[in-house]
Amino acid sequence: MTNKPLIGAALIGQSGGPSAVINASTYGVIKTAMESEYITTVYGANHGIKGVLDDRLFIMNEEDPKELEKMLYTPASVLGSCRYKLADPDADETDFKRILEIFRKYNIRYFFYNGGNDSMDTCNKISRFFAKNDFECRIIGVPKTIDNDLAGTDHCPGFGSAAKYIATSIMEVNRDTKVYDVGMITIVECMGRHAGWLTASAALANLKGEGPDLIYLPEVDFDMDSFINDVKRVYEDKHDVLIAVSEGIHYADGSFVSEAKTSGTDGFGHAQLGGLATRLAAIVKAATGAKVRGIELSLLQRCASHCASATDMQESFEAGKFAMESALAGETGKMVGFVCDRVGGYKCNYALFDLSQEANAEKKVPLEWITASHNNVTREFIDYCLPLIQGDVQQPKEDGLPCFVTLKRVLAK
Amino acid sequence: MTNKPLIGAALIGQSGGPSAVINASTYGVIKTAMESEYITTVYGANHGIKGVLDDRLFIMNEEDPKELEKMLYTPASVLGSCRYKLADPDADETDFKRILEIFRKYNIRYFFYNGGNDSMDTCNKISRFFAKNDFECRIIGVPKTIDNDLAGTDHCPGFGSAAKYIATSIMEVNRDTKVYDVGMITIVECMGRHAGWLTASAALANLKGEGPDLIYLPEVDFDMDSFINDVKRVYEDKHDVLIAVSEGIHYADGSFVSEAKTSGTDGFGHAQLGGLATRLAAIVKAATGAKVRGIELSLLQRCASHCASATDMQESFEAGKFAMESALAGETGKMVGFVCDRVGGYKCNYALFDLSQEANAEKKVPLEWITASHNNVTREFIDYCLPLIQGDVQQPKEDGLPCFVTLKRVLAK
Repeated sequence: MTNKPLIGAALIGQSGGPSAVINASTYGVIKTAMESEYITTVYGANHGIKGVLDDRLFIMNEEDPKELEKMLYTPASVLGSCRYKLADPDADETDFKRILEIFRKYNIRYFFYNGGNDSMDTCNKISRFFAKNDFECRIIGVPKTIDNDLAGTDHCPGFGSAAKYIATSIMEVNRDTKVYDVGMITIVECMGRHAGWLTASAALANLKGEGPDLIYLPEVDFDMDSFINDVKRVYEDKHDVLIAVSEGIHYADGSFVSEAKTSGTDGFGHAQLGGLATRLAAIVKAATGAKVRGIELSLLQRCASHCASATDMQESFEAGKFAMESALAGETGKMVGFVCDRVGGYKCNYALFDLSQEANAEKKVPLEWITASHNNVTREFIDYCLPLIQGDVQQPKEDGLPCFVTLKRVLAK
Repeated sequence: MTNKPLIGAALIGQSGGPSAVINASTYGVIKTAMESEYITTVYGANHGIKGVLDDRLFIMNEEDPKELEKMLYTPASVLGSCRYKLADPDADETDFKRILEIFRKYNIRYFFYNGGNDSMDTCNKISRFFAKNDFECRIIGVPKTIDNDLAGTDHCPGFGSAAKYIATSIMEVNRDTKVYDVGMITIVECMGRHAGWLTASAALANLKGEGPDLIYLPEVDFDMDSFINDVKRVYEDKHDVLIAVSEGIHYADGSFVSEAKTSGTDGFGHAQLGGLATRLAAIVKAATGAKVRGIELSLLQRCASHCASATDMQESFEAGKFAMESALAGETGKMVGFVCDRVGGYKCNYALFDLSQEANAEKKVPLEWITASHNNVTREFIDYCLPLIQGDVQQPKEDGLPCFVTLKRVLAK
């Protein structure tokens, strides 16, 4: 093993749910790799680790550099994503042997995986298997998750843009639902199975006096009676009620409030949630007799590149760049993360975290940032979140619509 | 009666569902009125005609002109809206007598009502009643409806911004839902009870190759079997299907496809629709076994000022300005509208239409702009719609979030 740059190919894959800026990170890796004299070829795995298993790697050097730059402004995973969970290499080596075979075929000496907790788990397992088999390859995880639930790092690329979209949309919905002089109760459902970061970001709108009256996060148990009492109290007081709820709110016994609507699971065994807003709207309507509307932000909140945070986009790009630079400098088995300073102005520093600590750990909203009544967040959350949504991205446009990247997708043979 | 400017106060009210740019029109009236030497005071009715009946008029001259300018960038109806249907003045004069009383009290000689079909109906009735009672007051309707369903005018203020938001969001959702290599069927529900303009605007995304495969409008009867066959065919062919449906799609017998979910009606006796996407998703899932997701754009599509069309905002402002200028020039009983030229570049001209023709007429998507298979729109629609979404609005921002107008709301006495 050496700290000197290895000469060989670099591979980047994307995994898990997309975000508005995951491609900015992937582009950060690709651009930096292309500029390095040590990298012979830059590959992009089609559908993450599945693309490796299927020997479907795109040659990124074949793409027009000018077109690739549009990745900064293109939502979702342009290389294709997957939700594929690798076995424990100690129990079943099948996939790992195939991965090693492909890496040897293309002489891949740098591997970057752009995703959330599960992706860090994948990086970690491959890293261990390669080490055991004496295959020298530097592996760095590049975080991505609108859920903001990776441990260690101050925050996650993708979260700031989703938070900006949610806060902006909440402000608009707040105006829309208050135009009539008949009272109205509006329930906005945000993503987040176990971590309430996204739902909490609705509170940013309160800085403008345009935010939710009530916010419910999955970090604490949900109590339907308290919820209805909260809503009734605000309704009597203000006549209009705006509520943000996380899809993952659950009762004390752990069952999801949305459970009646649950159908199917994703590849990792997570229940697929949805329909909570509609369900709560029906309950609140029955309890109050008021006009009630449920709104589910659905996929819109995670792919709204037209409302991306410039800070988030820049940091996402830099995270990819830092990953490549760190690998060239000899680092491996690490995840890129942010160490931020908020005293005397916001400053984001790039750092490496141990992959084995990252994999499958979930960072939640600290309980002390949730009000004692469990129906809002404190100023600490606002101070934490606000720097992450700063700045607007100037998307390239044509015909009044965004111009997303189109890849040639030349397959390696 | 005279064509010379009357000396007196001007009143503007807002009615019906809000839009991203209705305040731009209202601001166009207010700003122009404030600059006129003939207008003694400019009032804004709180909650439209209900504010007149309740004697709740804001004195707009008391507002900070700099703050008022933010109306251009503020969604929904800042004066408050209503859905109040006036009786036929020949049958019941109660409301009209009260309106006349208030107009006399404040010497209101100019009245502008900013809304959709129902608002034009209100203008028309008041106009007739005032004429019968020899009260000289110039009344101009200023159109507003994301539904784009007013007759006469080429298009309606508010539509372009909603169309831009829908096309942009569809492009993003299109990218998001295609990242996995498992097939996916996505159904996006857009607003539009009887007119399919909003749903059709999803087709703009096809200019970029990022639009829906199938589009269903309420202008033609919906057939569930044909729908399922369409979806199956595209799913087998492409593995991913993106569908845009109007909330108002209905069977040949006139019953809404969403009808099972219908609950309550608005003040005008329109059924309140919603839940269609979820309903169709369940049907499609049962028919195909595929992964299916329903997304309802809900209120987001009508209040997204962060994604407004600069063309729409400018035209909306100009419509208000033109209304005031026309009234000063002696016009009354008219609605402002657009006469557009699309040959050799887009040009929008402002014109007046007869109110009595406008009231309660509904303009639908021409049948010849809908494909023979009833599951898409033709190039004619694209050519019509595309100019309306051009240009991005630079919203004033603070803390990374939009700055909406805050009014002092000083009540007239």
